[in-house]
Amino acid sequence: MKFGGTSVADVERIKSVAKRVKREVDAGHEVAVVVSAMSGVTNQLVTWTSEIARLHDAREYDVVVATGEQVTTGLLALALQEIGVSARSWLGWQIQIHTDDAHGKARIERIDTAEIERRFAQGQVAVVAGFQGVGPDNRVTTLGRGGSDTSAVALAAALKADRCDIFTDVDGVYTTDPRIVAKARKLDKIAYEEMLELASQGAKVLQIRSVEMAMKHRVRLQVLSSFEDKPGTLVVDEDEIVEQEVVSGVAYSRDEAKITLVRVPDRPGVAASIFGPLADHNINVDMIVQNVSEGGQFTDLTFTVTKADLERAKKVLEDRRVALGYQALVPDSNVVKVSVIGLGMRSHAGVAQRMFKALAEKGINIQVISTSEIKVSVLVAEEYTELAVRALHTAYGLDAA
Amino acid sequence: MKFGGTSVADVERIKSVAKRVKREVDAGHEVAVVVSAMSGVTNQLVTWTSEIARLHDAREYDVVVATGEQVTTGLLALALQEIGVSARSWLGWQIQIHTDDAHGKARIERIDTAEIERRFAQGQVAVVAGFQGVGPDNRVTTLGRGGSDTSAVALAAALKADRCDIFTDVDGVYTTDPRIVAKARKLDKIAYEEMLELASQGAKVLQIRSVEMAMKHRVRLQVLSSFEDKPGTLVVDEDEIVEQEVVSGVAYSRDEAKITLVRVPDRPGVAASIFGPLADHNINVDMIVQNVSEGGQFTDLTFTVTKADLERAKKVLEDRRVALGYQALVPDSNVVKVSVIGLGMRSHAGVAQRMFKALAEKGINIQVISTSEIKVSVLVAEEYTELAVRALHTAYGLDAA
Repeated sequence: MKFGGTSVADVERIKSVAKRVKREVDAGHEVAVVVSAMSGVTNQLVTWTSEIARLHDAREYDVVVATGEQVTTGLLALALQEIGVSARSWLGWQIQIHTDDAHGKARIERIDTAEIERRFAQGQVAVVAGFQGVGPDNRVTTLGRGGSDTSAVALAAALKADRCDIFTDVDGVYTTDPRIVAKARKLDKIAYEEMLELASQGAKVLQIRSVEMAMKHRVRLQVLSSFEDKPGTLVVDEDEIVEQEVVSGVAYSRDEAKITLVRVPDRPGVAASIFGPLADHNINVDMIVQNVSEGGQFTDLTFTVTKADLERAKKVLEDRRVALGYQALVPDSNVVKVSVIGLGMRSHAGVAQRMFKALAEKGINIQVISTSEIKVSVLVAEEYTELAVRALHTAYGLDAA
Repeated sequence: MKFGGTSVADVERIKSVAKRVKREVDAGHEVAVVVSAMSGVTNQLVTWTSEIARLHDAREYDVVVATGEQVTTGLLALALQEIGVSARSWLGWQIQIHTDDAHGKARIERIDTAEIERRFAQGQVAVVAGFQGVGPDNRVTTLGRGGSDTSAVALAAALKADRCDIFTDVDGVYTTDPRIVAKARKLDKIAYEEMLELASQGAKVLQIRSVEMAMKHRVRLQVLSSFEDKPGTLVVDEDEIVEQEVVSGVAYSRDEAKITLVRVPDRPGVAASIFGPLADHNINVDMIVQNVSEGGQFTDLTFTVTKADLERAKKVLEDRRVALGYQALVPDSNVVKVSVIGLGMRSHAGVAQRMFKALAEKGINIQVISTSEIKVSVLVAEEYTELAVRALHTAYGLDAA
């Protein structure tokens, strides 16, 4: 069971979490609980580190920011004991949760579960600090923002758990954002691959790395509400999903910006000379389109980066303007990426065509298209976000009755 | 160097501490720094634990409350690096600071300093989390409130440091509380034994256990201001003090309460039957007076406990009223203990007499007296606190010129 920051935001909520855990214990289950920091706490800690040092030593940053989870871990163990449940807290260095030494965004390599399993046999609940581990040099590491989901999945994998329940402030995974589409439906089940694409294309319900890890280790994930008592959405192997829809969900991401390089000389190696320097500056490029060349001499190149990287990307390319030989650089941050995702695409033709038709009927111009085996994404002007999402939700038959 | 909660209360103060540390490094010293939690943080953490569970598992309490020092340790290491000082943070379990398993009030047994000393040789400052250690079962322990002073002294002893500087919000040890006596003088030096008595009798400048430990290991302590740049008070061996005053300081404690048991049967074992149950309930008894027996049959017994223990002490004794056979229990919390302390008493007669005379001249009635080799304490009505302290400060020639 994993509880996020809003679920442990104060003493009263921690007590509620304890009661929820007790129900599972009373039902005869062996339970490990992973907790995040109280909501807001990690932000405060991060702010302090950046007020002291802009470019900080990530090892010391980790020492500071890992404390939020340590507090909630101890408090939840106390709350469980208070209602008669045997429990103890486990910090990353105690279990241990071994990670690499990439401080601030460490990856879990191995979890020692022998002692926890021994105590399961005695009826003790393990309350485990999320987001943190211990590096090869015995220093505190953290997994990057939202890393507690990954902690939970990794622990579930190591324990060979029957299920990993991620309790959050929504009650499951929806066909799309219910704030935009009132007829959005909660999915009972979704396949790992689809969940991974949804998360990658903008759905914020689960951290991407946690879904990757669940898929790799075949951990049955459930996303459910910590405030309501009802089943959520199971994220499982596609074999478990009997009736596969063509499209399972519509995602959108406002976190995109578009750059067009006008009249780039069209010669071998030009793409490498543009995207190489961007990669060197840790700028991720997502969609890329190269327009038909004018007489084989020049081409227009359009691609997207995150909004946060736009200014840096512009600077990198402007610094190399002479070498690259383009005529103009046109940035545009008023764009949104809308994606339809579904395993069923693999066996159905015309999925992209239906998307283009639905958007055209609403008069929405498509700026860039990119596809993968189970996804079609388009870039459109940001003002069409809601209209596009609603049109696609209807077009693929996802609206609730 | 040890910095308390007010010295690291926010980011700006932590930066000031870093500058202060840098001065010592620039002067060629090898430096270990022990820090407390930001002021107020530990109280918040303690409050959360007691809101969740009144009688809490001290092991989980320690997990929660130890986080405050972890935060400041990481932040100070960052602040030092930012001004070009090589530094790293050390948590109790990393160094390691081995303690016993008395969670919440653990005692330091041993500190492994080899790695810190190796890094000293490379010019690295060790920033060490105060107040915390690691227990025999690899769990987080804490040393009790104010324990960071003890951490600092223990570390200084283990490192065989030339000095242990305790930076605080006062600039040294005074002959008495300057808020009461305007003519109080800052002492340049004070002997361990005197400091121990001052701390025990109400002076709050240093934690008692830290002074005991400094005395045991002959660590030269200095108490000084973290906000002003001037020498403080050295706490040292009495051999270092050339001119020993008869009385070095006047202390007072408002944290006292008096209980009188009226007409207790005067028979062998009665004291044991009264103080035994109090000890069993962890109630410390300080001063004890037994009045002259009336014809050998009854006696009045007066003693003091802390104000916090008064209600519990009353209950323990009232529950045993029949067995103890006393006629009445008279509690009084309107009392203060005033003490004069000085190594010079050992070789001077008439010290107590001068005290009684000075108080009598001001019309202050003495309720209870207790003495030790280097201390005379009296219990008087609380309303006389300031008057008594001032009178004694003058009577022993302590007033500044």
